[in-house]
Amino acid sequence: MDVASVILMLVVLLVLARIGARLFARFGMPGLIGEIIVGILIANISFDGTSLLTLLNIDMGNINIIPPIEPNDNYNVLEIFAEIGVIFLLFSVGLETKVRDLFAVGKTAMLTATMGVIIPFIFGFILIMVYDGNMHHALFLAAAMVATSVGITARVIKDMKVLETLESRIIIGAAVIDDVLGMIVLAIVMGMAGGEELSVLSISVTVFKAVAFVLLMLALAYWVVPKIYKYFDEMHKRKVAATGEAHSSVNKLILAIVVCLGFSWAADMIGLATIIGAFLGGMLLAEYAWEWDLEGKIESITTLFISYFFVNVGMQVDLESCASVTVIVLATIVIFLAVISKYIGCGLGAQMGDKTLSKESRHIIGVGMIPRGEVGIIVAAYGLSSGAMSNELYAVVVIMAVATTIIAPPLLAKAFRKKYPPEYKITPDDLV
Amino acid sequence: MDVASVILMLVVLLVLARIGARLFARFGMPGLIGEIIVGILIANISFDGTSLLTLLNIDMGNINIIPPIEPNDNYNVLEIFAEIGVIFLLFSVGLETKVRDLFAVGKTAMLTATMGVIIPFIFGFILIMVYDGNMHHALFLAAAMVATSVGITARVIKDMKVLETLESRIIIGAAVIDDVLGMIVLAIVMGMAGGEELSVLSISVTVFKAVAFVLLMLALAYWVVPKIYKYFDEMHKRKVAATGEAHSSVNKLILAIVVCLGFSWAADMIGLATIIGAFLGGMLLAEYAWEWDLEGKIESITTLFISYFFVNVGMQVDLESCASVTVIVLATIVIFLAVISKYIGCGLGAQMGDKTLSKESRHIIGVGMIPRGEVGIIVAAYGLSSGAMSNELYAVVVIMAVATTIIAPPLLAKAFRKKYPPEYKITPDDLV
Repeated sequence: MDVASVILMLVVLLVLARIGARLFARFGMPGLIGEIIVGILIANISFDGTSLLTLLNIDMGNINIIPPIEPNDNYNVLEIFAEIGVIFLLFSVGLETKVRDLFAVGKTAMLTATMGVIIPFIFGFILIMVYDGNMHHALFLAAAMVATSVGITARVIKDMKVLETLESRIIIGAAVIDDVLGMIVLAIVMGMAGGEELSVLSISVTVFKAVAFVLLMLALAYWVVPKIYKYFDEMHKRKVAATGEAHSSVNKLILAIVVCLGFSWAADMIGLATIIGAFLGGMLLAEYAWEWDLEGKIESITTLFISYFFVNVGMQVDLESCASVTVIVLATIVIFLAVISKYIGCGLGAQMGDKTLSKESRHIIGVGMIPRGEVGIIVAAYGLSSGAMSNELYAVVVIMAVATTIIAPPLLAKAFRKKYPPEYKITPDDLV
Repeated sequence: MDVASVILMLVVLLVLARIGARLFARFGMPGLIGEIIVGILIANISFDGTSLLTLLNIDMGNINIIPPIEPNDNYNVLEIFAEIGVIFLLFSVGLETKVRDLFAVGKTAMLTATMGVIIPFIFGFILIMVYDGNMHHALFLAAAMVATSVGITARVIKDMKVLETLESRIIIGAAVIDDVLGMIVLAIVMGMAGGEELSVLSISVTVFKAVAFVLLMLALAYWVVPKIYKYFDEMHKRKVAATGEAHSSVNKLILAIVVCLGFSWAADMIGLATIIGAFLGGMLLAEYAWEWDLEGKIESITTLFISYFFVNVGMQVDLESCASVTVIVLATIVIFLAVISKYIGCGLGAQMGDKTLSKESRHIIGVGMIPRGEVGIIVAAYGLSSGAMSNELYAVVVIMAVATTIIAPPLLAKAFRKKYPPEYKITPDDLV
């Protein structure tokens, strides 16, 4: 393997991705969209038959033909960096999600999340069954329409400094539950697409494994980890009292990295996505993230890796398959349904949970849940790599995820500003 | 490529490496030695023919036979992680090295460094020429005996809180110059070992390229970068004054990552080691590292990667080639020469530079320059991978680097304590 060639690839992709991110941020859009578009351009533009992929010695291979062409070393490294990037991203979202908060937001958030999952899933599923009748296609597109991007939502709310409002607490709680539900949906869909028979038994097994894993992790986070922490904390204090010196203990960042990667692997082993394990692993440590100063450290690591994920996402988009009337029409319908179904579903769910909510509050909640961002794309990427989704539908999902991510932040800002004093303000740079 | 298998490998190696590091730290030794030994054990122990390498799906391949067996995907990723780890380690050393300090420590440090390079090089070269007469062997072993490990030395001094003493300033300055000289020596040796004729011309070209690159980077660091910084800083201030808002500018961590990887690649391109570029790249940003809060962020990234470097270093050691009387005898002689030559060379150099230095001070300086640590191993690893060094000599260098790293910290602590009040104290954990 040529190490220098790998390093060159990493540098050039990082620089291009950040230029894309900054450009989009300057025009008031989240930076990740710029990174995705950089990926699309890299994979689709070539001069005189020489593309940037060739110059950077990236060969993505082609696993859809027989015999499959394996990707080369450089692309393997890019893929690992992309995967580790999204793992650390979801881990850091987990670090911000205390299991107590999850339990405390209660009924309203739960109903908001549930309705916000059911309605979009039904809309998406029916649309594709009507469109091409392929159940795998329908399942993956429906699953991609389900999960709200916690990252984007939380970031907008944090940047507007309205984290303390009732609506924000419901949105954050619901977005988190929604993410867990979305991951269960993803697990089910992946299990069904993984060559397994679509029997009631196989679905039940998948649901059981997913629910059991999630519940086990929640139980760990709520009961077991605090006890372990207390045990070591007291042992540490006794040691300090006995020896009189602050004996440095286990490196907390290493512990976090091991938890993050370890549970990602465990999730994969039982048939869930790695990111589910990463998110739940983060939640295990959420109570101690501040004390251990983890968030900044994990963010540094995420910063190194995450751009490769979004660039790689873009690189999967084959522009030729998008340049058809079908894709454009289908994407328009999917965007419309994605926005409407989430808005209606969450508004309805919120009202079911808390009858006293005003129309304005339900509007804020509905709008706040719209962005799909990276989660929808992750679902579609799994679908594409498992062969359960076509290039056209993948392109449609990416367009939908990008579009909802662009649409939501300004709408949410406007909705919050209407209800709360106008001093709240999102600057585009904060969304990069 | 099986992503889950890569993640499992990364988790298990990280956990084992840290256990090794903690165990050694508990017995008062630097943790990196534990990580190297973990690597040695992983690669050399097997039960019923099943080694941990097999379980972790690591195939190191064998590039020394014809046709060469290529390493598998997992090992490729491990190698990239190891390389990025050592790149970020040297980058962070660079971040702590201001070019002004380098210029300011002046004559004494320069002479200490120079004599501390010349004497060990001559001793090492003569030893191997006498031993087997192979000039490539002699050059690489001599080069591996040259470079003081800035990391270890600086860490001991920092932990003892004697950074402000005259001896410490000379040691740090000399260790840095010594590193640059060591890297030039490495570049020359690599150029000569790279199949090139050992002509005066080829050596001159290599020296010229190495010196030109280093001088260019020093000039960049001293004249150009401060001007660029000032230009952008003033532009930023004008913008703030005009718009009234603190416009967030380029992400400094990304900038640092790009500088680090970019100059690593550039160094490789002109035939230097990647780590030379990383170190000099760090130096470019040393003046702003504090303001931009870079050190902690880069440390988080280094923490993720660096253990893989030391584990991989250990994995290259073939215990069978060490288990000979020759290697043990040779290693003992090399360790003795490495300690003696550095101690004499640096003491002599320091005296030449500053006649007023007491015997005690020269003793501190001589002892402080003993540890070779990772730098010596890096040199030997380049020698091994380029085929210019034998497995036996590689094993000898690793043993020497480990031994000098173990010997130096307690001696240095004792020497400092003798001259300065006994309240200084190194705790082993601080060396991990």
